Amino acid sequence: MAGGDDLKLLGTWPSPYAIRVKLALAHKGLSYEYAEEDLANKSELLLSSNPVHRKIPVLIHNGVPVCESNIILEYIDEAFAGPSILPADPYERAMARFWAAYVDDKLLAAWATMVFKGKTEEEKLEGKKALFAALETLEGALAKCSDGKDFFGGDTVGLVDMVLGSHLSFLKATEAMAGEEILRSDRTQLLAAWMARFSELDAAKAALPDVDRVVEFAKMRQARLAAAAAAASNN
Amino acid sequence: MAGGDDLKLLGTWPSPYAIRVKLALAHKGLSYEYAEEDLANKSELLLSSNPVHRKIPVLIHNGVPVCESNIILEYIDEAFAGPSILPADPYERAMARFWAAYVDDKLLAAWATMVFKGKTEEEKLEGKKALFAALETLEGALAKCSDGKDFFGGDTVGLVDMVLGSHLSFLKATEAMAGEEILRSDRTQLLAAWMARFSELDAAKAALPDVDRVVEFAKMRQARLAAAAAAASNN
Repeated sequence: MAGGDDLKLLGTWPSPYAIRVKLALAHKGLSYEYAEEDLANKSELLLSSNPVHRKIPVLIHNGVPVCESNIILEYIDEAFAGPSILPADPYERAMARFWAAYVDDKLLAAWATMVFKGKTEEEKLEGKKALFAALETLEGALAKCSDGKDFFGGDTVGLVDMVLGSHLSFLKATEAMAGEEILRSDRTQLLAAWMARFSELDAAKAALPDVDRVVEFAKMRQARLAAAAAAASNN
Repeated sequence: MAGGDDLKLLGTWPSPYAIRVKLALAHKGLSYEYAEEDLANKSELLLSSNPVHRKIPVLIHNGVPVCESNIILEYIDEAFAGPSILPADPYERAMARFWAAYVDDKLLAAWATMVFKGKTEEEKLEGKKALFAALETLEGALAKCSDGKDFFGGDTVGLVDMVLGSHLSFLKATEAMAGEEILRSDRTQLLAAWMARFSELDAAKAALPDVDRVVEFAKMRQARLAAAAAAASNN
């Protein structure tokens, strides 16, 4: 850590957006203070640091807040020395940004439909199909980006690894809840191997929440959504 | 333009996402071939260049496609010499990315509700209120980012100018259709002055579509949406 740099991260433990910031800070070897936010009772520091969106994560660097997770990742890459998060080549940078956005948009939307948003079993199944299709697209991206190496970033993790990795506990929790593999070794062999490698990283072990805890969190959220839907249909 | 660089842009004339790429290419002094896409009958080149999203804009640089408008803008900034699009300082870069995303998310969502998506007059009015609120937030950002200079980017246009500027013809068309100012000089004085300055730039004059043509386009889209809604309510 550069002398005099004071870093504070505001997050919540299950948030993939906070998890990826933890992964990026670890990647650069930066130490920081972490503050767990209660989203039902947001801290004054969170509200004053992110008055526009009032959302976590926020990284406060020497008193100055930076918001929005992928913007924070690029900030960490640009403001601190150490191993890169994005590649150096402009085209490879564009590809990394493209696949990071793909994970957060397409893959996440499909997963959310399967687990939380699908209103009927049919809708949930559509979400699951879309999730498998998105993972197969990502399998092709991994083959291309990694060029036979271990990670999207090549020999070490990069932006796409951090973004996809930040969702890993939820993907594993989904596997546990559905009783079947999502990152299947027969359909998405490279991704399945990537997941095994990523899970073994010290940074991942430190940043990713326990799958059992995420299962409990997801079940509580499903129960809340079901109760809200039942209340709405009674009105 | 660097020797040997071959640039081709696939877009549609009313697309703010294509317009901002035109603004960025002009900013760097790059010449390029432009191909207008028919979204009802997409070209083989578009489908093969962006197989994942099948969307415009795509910038093809020496035969290699780059997709997603803001990723294209960062690519243009990183791959070509000439005036910068993003600032050099990591914190200022993060701020530029933050406000560019704000325009595309919050401001655009509010505007779309006001003009297209609001199903009732009440919903449309909510959209309009949200649009004014977003513009007031952006007024504060302009004061801070420009630091008394002409543009979000300082003395010259930058990322946020290009992103906001790419929506300008639609904002002006909305003013024409609503019969009132959206960028009001009494509520958002700096933005109103910004708009006047931005509109006078040669690059803006070349890239921004005629407001009358956008009004026609928007009215056609409103009519199509109304017909679709009427058809749905008859089923």
